[in-house]
Amino acid sequence: MTGAPLTDDLTGPVLVVGAGLLGTSVGLALRARGVEVFLTDVNEENVRTASGLGAGSAAKHPAELQLVVVAVPPDHLGPAIAAALTDTRAVVTDVGSVKGAPLAEVRSAVPDAALARYVGSHPMAGSERSGPLAASSVLFDGRPWAVAPHAGSSEEAVAVVTALVEACGATPFRFSPEEHDEAVARTSHLPHVVAALVAGALAGAPPEHLVLSGQGVRDVTRIAAGDPRLWEQILTANATALTGLLREVRSDLDGLLEALEDGSRHDLGDILGRGVAGTAAIPGKHGGPAVAETGVFVAVPDHPGELARLFSDVGDIGVNVEDVRIDHDPGRPVGLVELTVATDRAEHLQHALAGRGWSVHR
Amino acid sequence: MTGAPLTDDLTGPVLVVGAGLLGTSVGLALRARGVEVFLTDVNEENVRTASGLGAGSAAKHPAELQLVVVAVPPDHLGPAIAAALTDTRAVVTDVGSVKGAPLAEVRSAVPDAALARYVGSHPMAGSERSGPLAASSVLFDGRPWAVAPHAGSSEEAVAVVTALVEACGATPFRFSPEEHDEAVARTSHLPHVVAALVAGALAGAPPEHLVLSGQGVRDVTRIAAGDPRLWEQILTANATALTGLLREVRSDLDGLLEALEDGSRHDLGDILGRGVAGTAAIPGKHGGPAVAETGVFVAVPDHPGELARLFSDVGDIGVNVEDVRIDHDPGRPVGLVELTVATDRAEHLQHALAGRGWSVHR
Repeated sequence: MTGAPLTDDLTGPVLVVGAGLLGTSVGLALRARGVEVFLTDVNEENVRTASGLGAGSAAKHPAELQLVVVAVPPDHLGPAIAAALTDTRAVVTDVGSVKGAPLAEVRSAVPDAALARYVGSHPMAGSERSGPLAASSVLFDGRPWAVAPHAGSSEEAVAVVTALVEACGATPFRFSPEEHDEAVARTSHLPHVVAALVAGALAGAPPEHLVLSGQGVRDVTRIAAGDPRLWEQILTANATALTGLLREVRSDLDGLLEALEDGSRHDLGDILGRGVAGTAAIPGKHGGPAVAETGVFVAVPDHPGELARLFSDVGDIGVNVEDVRIDHDPGRPVGLVELTVATDRAEHLQHALAGRGWSVHR
Repeated sequence: MTGAPLTDDLTGPVLVVGAGLLGTSVGLALRARGVEVFLTDVNEENVRTASGLGAGSAAKHPAELQLVVVAVPPDHLGPAIAAALTDTRAVVTDVGSVKGAPLAEVRSAVPDAALARYVGSHPMAGSERSGPLAASSVLFDGRPWAVAPHAGSSEEAVAVVTALVEACGATPFRFSPEEHDEAVARTSHLPHVVAALVAGALAGAPPEHLVLSGQGVRDVTRIAAGDPRLWEQILTANATALTGLLREVRSDLDGLLEALEDGSRHDLGDILGRGVAGTAAIPGKHGGPAVAETGVFVAVPDHPGELARLFSDVGDIGVNVEDVRIDHDPGRPVGLVELTVATDRAEHLQHALAGRGWSVHR
């Protein structure tokens, strides 16, 4: 045992198929580590742009490649992965949001020997923007990245894909393709469609009712602003896992309607209590167990110098901030800043900030 | 016309019934403006605590009061409002989350002449904590506060309650009780129950699946952590408006399930597109029209001094920050800070921060 990092397994050359946001970001991260990268895209302009940014070479790639990273839209994953397995002898991965449906397509298109070189993966990173100009070498920095070998994937291929994840600065988590799709149905696709349903209900509201919108409804609906064309593809590809969950949610919704109609506090309390348990089940932000956190609210004049002064004071006080949220007052230039801190530090922070003249409450 | 502020209408004395979070905060805000405040609570300890904090007097209130503010839990609103109207000649308001159900109880308990002195209201403010110790004179600062007179409310009573809202530093918005209840069913109660359903689905997940939880699911489920005992009362009191909306959502959910089962991209796109429209319908954070915003992501070592340095740089660069979110990397001490800024300022901020050595992307 030499203690050498696993990323020694990634020696290149690497071919990135699809020079959009994710593909170009992979290229930038690998180039920053000195790995040789080649780029292709059905859109030549994307290749020129990504190459110009330093994400890799636009030249024809050599016959011998160590790894092909397929970073094309969900609808095109299956054929693109199959083509990479057929055209090269390299390990092949993809960065799509769903793993089972493309695998089924690939399995029907290539022999088992070639299929052994395929290990699907999925970085938990993205952006509201798309295309190579939105790319960044640090897009994946510290993010979870699912590595999802199928039953026939070779361990060598798994090691290469794991090395890719680490070279991009992300944290690998291993799943089977089915487990991955169930996990993201629950943690990503269900929240997305439910946010869209709640936001859809706002679209039908009299506009004057929406002045009563607070941080809660903003939080619940934020992700519903995502690109419908992309989400159509993702949700369709994961339809099986998602419809199973949606049927459970519909059944819970029926239970909720019944409890409201019957005035059954007990059943209503059960549903709400399960929600509380679910929020506590999400891992802590540092990957450890969830820690009790409390919001401390500070009124801050809405210009950037005041935020700097606030965080300078928080730094002096020495309390670590787990999250920040700015809730602007309607109609005036003051923001209420919510500092989320460990519950056992909240009182100290509150009093220390008040002592420095901040208008603060919990 | 003297240009005198409307708050001249609030001269006191004011009686606050219920010295919990909201009642004590009202007392503190009014005392800060020199208004005489008296406090009562079924729990004597709450009165002593609130009075000790400076929220008003624990002594017996005088017979002549200008205003009674009822700040008791939702289940007890109707009787407490009726008692205030019967026992005093003052204007009476309450700060409950639902307006129609308590009004119906009050209407059946007092004559129309007394009912004219009642104007329900609802401040859009709260805290995860409760009780007088969580109170603050600035809890309502800049928040929307619904003023909801019924058809028989006198304009004089409306003026006094509006003056209360302004004395507390909040912004009054006038609704009928029915409109108010429909508005909060959509902007508050529906998001809450749907967040509880999504969070409930997480409670049933294998824990290892939840490492893939990102900011999206955290945002969608955050409010589901609220106190089930309080929410049972709120949802029950607004059952009529809420069940109507929930039936619409169930029908949309059925349409979504059908679209997923049929593979109908068109129908799926319609539902997602309505969601996008809904997110755009929420008023801008400053109360004006929604402005296009973009997230700029900055990797920041996870200790408070670094946040201060970041906001100091943002201040120097001169770009206004509309919102902040910290997404901690699982398993290491770095946070990815998302600065939400006007879209037309994002590129400038990104380049200027990169020029100061920050690791930044969009």
